[in-house]
Amino acid sequence: MKQGLVFFRKLGEAVERLWERCAMREEDRDLLQAMFSAAVKAAEPGAAMRPFLPARPKGRVVVVGAGKGAAQMAAAFEELWDGPVEGVVVTRYGFGAKTRAIRVMEAAHPVPDEAGLAATDALFKAMEGLGSDDLVIALVCGGGSALLAGPGEGLALSDEVALNEALLASGAPIGAMNAVRKMVSRVKGGRLAAAAHPAKVVSLVVSDVPGDDPAQVASGPTVPDARGRAEALAAVRDYAIKLPARVAAFLERADEPPKPEDACFAGNEVHVIASAAKSLEAAARVAEQAAFATAILSDAIEGEAREVAKMHAAIAREVAMRDRPFSRPVAILSGGETTVTLRGEGGRGGRNSEFLLSFALAVDGVEGIAALAADTDGVDGSEDNAGAFADGQTAVRMRTAGADPADALACNDAWGAFAAVGDLYVTGPTGTNVNDLRIILIR
Amino acid sequence: MKQGLVFFRKLGEAVERLWERCAMREEDRDLLQAMFSAAVKAAEPGAAMRPFLPARPKGRVVVVGAGKGAAQMAAAFEELWDGPVEGVVVTRYGFGAKTRAIRVMEAAHPVPDEAGLAATDALFKAMEGLGSDDLVIALVCGGGSALLAGPGEGLALSDEVALNEALLASGAPIGAMNAVRKMVSRVKGGRLAAAAHPAKVVSLVVSDVPGDDPAQVASGPTVPDARGRAEALAAVRDYAIKLPARVAAFLERADEPPKPEDACFAGNEVHVIASAAKSLEAAARVAEQAAFATAILSDAIEGEAREVAKMHAAIAREVAMRDRPFSRPVAILSGGETTVTLRGEGGRGGRNSEFLLSFALAVDGVEGIAALAADTDGVDGSEDNAGAFADGQTAVRMRTAGADPADALACNDAWGAFAAVGDLYVTGPTGTNVNDLRIILIR
Repeated sequence: MKQGLVFFRKLGEAVERLWERCAMREEDRDLLQAMFSAAVKAAEPGAAMRPFLPARPKGRVVVVGAGKGAAQMAAAFEELWDGPVEGVVVTRYGFGAKTRAIRVMEAAHPVPDEAGLAATDALFKAMEGLGSDDLVIALVCGGGSALLAGPGEGLALSDEVALNEALLASGAPIGAMNAVRKMVSRVKGGRLAAAAHPAKVVSLVVSDVPGDDPAQVASGPTVPDARGRAEALAAVRDYAIKLPARVAAFLERADEPPKPEDACFAGNEVHVIASAAKSLEAAARVAEQAAFATAILSDAIEGEAREVAKMHAAIAREVAMRDRPFSRPVAILSGGETTVTLRGEGGRGGRNSEFLLSFALAVDGVEGIAALAADTDGVDGSEDNAGAFADGQTAVRMRTAGADPADALACNDAWGAFAAVGDLYVTGPTGTNVNDLRIILIR
Repeated sequence: MKQGLVFFRKLGEAVERLWERCAMREEDRDLLQAMFSAAVKAAEPGAAMRPFLPARPKGRVVVVGAGKGAAQMAAAFEELWDGPVEGVVVTRYGFGAKTRAIRVMEAAHPVPDEAGLAATDALFKAMEGLGSDDLVIALVCGGGSALLAGPGEGLALSDEVALNEALLASGAPIGAMNAVRKMVSRVKGGRLAAAAHPAKVVSLVVSDVPGDDPAQVASGPTVPDARGRAEALAAVRDYAIKLPARVAAFLERADEPPKPEDACFAGNEVHVIASAAKSLEAAARVAEQAAFATAILSDAIEGEAREVAKMHAAIAREVAMRDRPFSRPVAILSGGETTVTLRGEGGRGGRNSEFLLSFALAVDGVEGIAALAADTDGVDGSEDNAGAFADGQTAVRMRTAGADPADALACNDAWGAFAAVGDLYVTGPTGTNVNDLRIILIR
């Protein structure tokens, strides 16, 4: 009798082991999905801005805004706001959204064009004649710096374009680049908000910059920072920025941007409503509810996807093997945007599935690891998946399914390899974007 | 009077700021050096084996050994051992060292040759006729698998070479590769130790494998593991290993390697005396004495140096900015071996200085970060430096010195860039090697 029981227990265990080799643990997959959903939800403009909406003012409500997500933010604001609204936002060509009262203009990104100049004029014009009973809502997100074209007095659009090229070529960090931009612009560095005075300005900012300083998002059109001419000149020197001659001359004589302590900003509010960091934190909270410790490595990891994946895998293996640098069970999270260098033609996939295929190869055979990598906008690359799932048996499963994972990685066909084992993650477009999300569970 | 004091205080602060831009903080540099020295010391064969030396036996002491560092280990053992010694070790061509009584043979690595066959014979011969009062000291380190050539009965050296090519091409993890190797070898998988019976065998192992399982170092000539035919066949299937036909046939009929529980191994001892992990831990202890928290990310990070550096930098910035995933002050450590893809000609440097140049660019302008990357063997690449130092001002200093860090990285001339600012780290050859060491201090 007892031997019979032992037999059935052993049989059960064997079936379980076999099953685990056939598919990722259901509870891991569920948790990874729940974490991703929480990250996306934290970045949805409507849900994100609701807690920060000000009281309805006595006077007018004027919305201004700029960035790749500005039209979605405007639509979300109209949905939430109780009362009449007017205003104008500028977004990238093709990035418009349906709004009722707020005008959506489109302009060029990342290289500004005449439409951007016109949009900047329209934003200033929308705020003309405001009084102290009026309210300006500024909707600011990534891409707004190029979209809000507007060089200082006496400079041309071509000067601003040339400056931007020089800045990007220098490799200077965002704060240093923006110190220069703010000196030669008529809209950046708080100048848009200064023009709204005496109306109160409430800035709702979706951050795409490391550190989430709202003064750096879109070069801070409504958020002044303390940097002026001295900091701009220091940046030019430290990062060997090759300024166009006309810009260099302008920098010497230009007015400093307004300062945070200036009276025109008193009473304004600035809220970072969404960011990669906030989304990572939202995902982490879901893991914590499932009794996982959490470790956010960074919200701004860059680099070649397959190489960055190897380092994520090395850390995961260290945890699995030696319970360090984090104690199990732990969810390791990272954000940012990797890159993919194409090595062949005809490969399908994107940076997240490529990341995950390289990760799967590097944790091949390791127990207790499950991972998700996906783009928070819901579209990873050339196909319709947001990303994919992988664990320590993924590479073996792919081989069994006739898809060699190393070959697939060699020709950038991560999509094909994950499709072969049914581990693509498809969400459809999410309507928001705080870059990529990578989650590694280690039990 | 008070104004005068304020003036001098401000002047002092300005000088201090200027000074910090001119050179890395002395205390950071000292701590980084002390940590590197501790890591190297933990891997020195003599210091590392001393705690594990057994008591002098009644009978003979026979030393056998294999690996790229086997000659140094033999010399260190002779230095420490009190009593007569005999034996033979095999190392790579050109890796010999001066010994008194222990014979040093040389053979080919990584592709085995006839000299390896002869060396394997010599090792078995040195242990012939040993009794239970005799002691065998086995000195085992990385590279020993290829150096201890010796295919199973009926196979030729060319079969073992062909098998090894197939294993490496498969990308299978070390444990899976070794499961196959141990089935078709007459020396691996504990077989060398089994031949020493009834003498006691004390294995002193310098690990170069992730996880530091001594049964995997040099395919474990003196350390049996539990894997046999079933595991070897599973590895062939799971990793789609394209076995040479003669090896595949042999695998079906070969004897299993001995098992850990076999009587011939009773009373043997196995000690991992040095490894990347132990060296990282030794370096971490030095940081802890300086009141830093420590985080060992992994002892086995692989990948393109400049890309892996970006991720180290992202984590360092997250710590500097948000005090996570580790709390400041913290020393973040990692080991392993990165790779460098050459992009031009004439560049000077190695993987550690290239790593650090990319790191310096990615933390450009960030305060409170100081880092060292160096090869524990004391030679990073084409020049005589072990590595280099960098902090958040390194890139600015390089530009000031006329060496553009981005240009230098583009043409693999990290050495030139660090030489320009006097931040190369020169130690001379250290006589040991546990791969690379990267340390990042964040205050």
